[in-house]
Amino acid sequence: MQGLAESTTVTFADRLAELVAARESQIVLGLDPDPARLWPSALAAAGHDGSAAQRAAAAVRAHCAALIDAAGPACVAVKPQLACFERLGAEGWAALQATVDHARERGLIVLADGKRGDIAVSAAAYAQALVGSTPTPFGDVEGLGADAFTANPLLGVDALEPLVDGARAAAAGVFVLVRTSNPGAADVEDLRLAGDGGGTVWERLAQIVTRLGGTPGAASGLSDVGAVVGATAPEHVARMRELMPHAPFLLPGIGAQGGRVEEIAPAFAPGRAGGLVSASRSIASAHESTGAAPAAAARAEAERLREAAWSL
Amino acid sequence: MQGLAESTTVTFADRLAELVAARESQIVLGLDPDPARLWPSALAAAGHDGSAAQRAAAAVRAHCAALIDAAGPACVAVKPQLACFERLGAEGWAALQATVDHARERGLIVLADGKRGDIAVSAAAYAQALVGSTPTPFGDVEGLGADAFTANPLLGVDALEPLVDGARAAAAGVFVLVRTSNPGAADVEDLRLAGDGGGTVWERLAQIVTRLGGTPGAASGLSDVGAVVGATAPEHVARMRELMPHAPFLLPGIGAQGGRVEEIAPAFAPGRAGGLVSASRSIASAHESTGAAPAAAARAEAERLREAAWSL
Repeated sequence: MQGLAESTTVTFADRLAELVAARESQIVLGLDPDPARLWPSALAAAGHDGSAAQRAAAAVRAHCAALIDAAGPACVAVKPQLACFERLGAEGWAALQATVDHARERGLIVLADGKRGDIAVSAAAYAQALVGSTPTPFGDVEGLGADAFTANPLLGVDALEPLVDGARAAAAGVFVLVRTSNPGAADVEDLRLAGDGGGTVWERLAQIVTRLGGTPGAASGLSDVGAVVGATAPEHVARMRELMPHAPFLLPGIGAQGGRVEEIAPAFAPGRAGGLVSASRSIASAHESTGAAPAAAARAEAERLREAAWSL
Repeated sequence: MQGLAESTTVTFADRLAELVAARESQIVLGLDPDPARLWPSALAAAGHDGSAAQRAAAAVRAHCAALIDAAGPACVAVKPQLACFERLGAEGWAALQATVDHARERGLIVLADGKRGDIAVSAAAYAQALVGSTPTPFGDVEGLGADAFTANPLLGVDALEPLVDGARAAAAGVFVLVRTSNPGAADVEDLRLAGDGGGTVWERLAQIVTRLGGTPGAASGLSDVGAVVGATAPEHVARMRELMPHAPFLLPGIGAQGGRVEEIAPAFAPGRAGGLVSASRSIASAHESTGAAPAAAARAEAERLREAAWSL
């Protein structure tokens, strides 16, 4: 146990850097549970009573707990994909909350991956939901209690500010989408701009990240506003680091999406916590190619990724 | 009751157009419940037992039901803002489900406003959550059962396709963000592009909407892929209609955000259902300026908006 939540005066970035050093890991365990592809051991947790939603949510919760217990020791954080829980309704959201709580109990940072973005008052509500709390006439209602969340910047700075403000008030962080790991990134993010020095949409998004990031934390040199940077475009990582010198990068696309951890070394320039390597299916489904038991295969794959990143 | 869900062979657009004609309304009632600003009548529904989350969710549910009962008769649809429910956790999601069910029972179309967007497998999960269902070993789990949802296009076409495919499979619709109603729209959406005919980011997003929209429904002439178009920039509405001749427009920003319903007439060119006028706070909080009872003030304001739009 690393004591994540003892003080809210330490910034997210400093807390992240400290935990990366303590656990010697930059690996983020993606939690994208598909009820049709859960580990067999999790299915037993569903029992024989209740609705399909209740049983599926119980199995998802057990699957995520088992995955965290197996692969978590090689990781610094988990990244639950909110869509995978929301599709099970209120039962799914309860499983998400249980998964977040379990990860925190295991000393892991929680990055809630919902890619939220909306205008001011709604953006503030998302911050309350993910890292803050909501005042009500019946007392404050605590949100999910994540340590950070992903955000979509299409709506501009005034839509990001309530997310960043809400995160800072909770000593949490925000990872803003800058260039994603899918081929469709070419359709909007890669468009070239006229005037003002040209560049691309994603370079403009990177500038917004830097503007919102402000002064980096004293201990880590990293900001509490990070960037989601697809590891499938390693040729861009050096330019991203140039534009966002203090932002922690969240690098999805390793493993199942084709990215290779060896190609993203520039991300780590401001320190190891500057480059978080996210992997989901390649860990959770490692047993499908190795034939080992799911937990053992997941642990081995997470440890392999940890060593590959740490050796850079 | 207009019998929304009798057949899944009618497209969302045709169903929408039919209901606009039957109810003589293009008004979308925004549901953005703030637990600190609920109608007094709703607070009693919270009872005296249970957690703060349970009581707040019960009050939010009662507030939304009362607002739907009061203003719904002047409207064609409701638009729950997902953030406002998510911030109450699993209890909030259950209140969202109850609100969706209540609106549908009242014959209203439901537009789930979550502005979701993610890469392929996660996008498919959002479609399952909002308009579809999820196969599990314990049987299919039904999603929210909305008629349409809002989507964020930053991640490009391959991230939108699973949302559109999931919607079409459920005879539902998607409203893609094109240009939003906040000042920050200038930061990314309004950026001018180099080459390829120039234009702006939002014009490129409009082209993506048209590409995804395909052939419009036979009865309405409208597509099942619509666009979110801020009513605070009426000077753009004619150009948007030119780029997206068949897309239904969802026009937020009326009332509290400063847009005026009289300024957006070009949206209605392909028919009345081509321009849906969304209003939230101006209806729910109408009593704060008029001094009338909340339900009466909400009904009067919704009816005023309905007449203003219908007379264009």
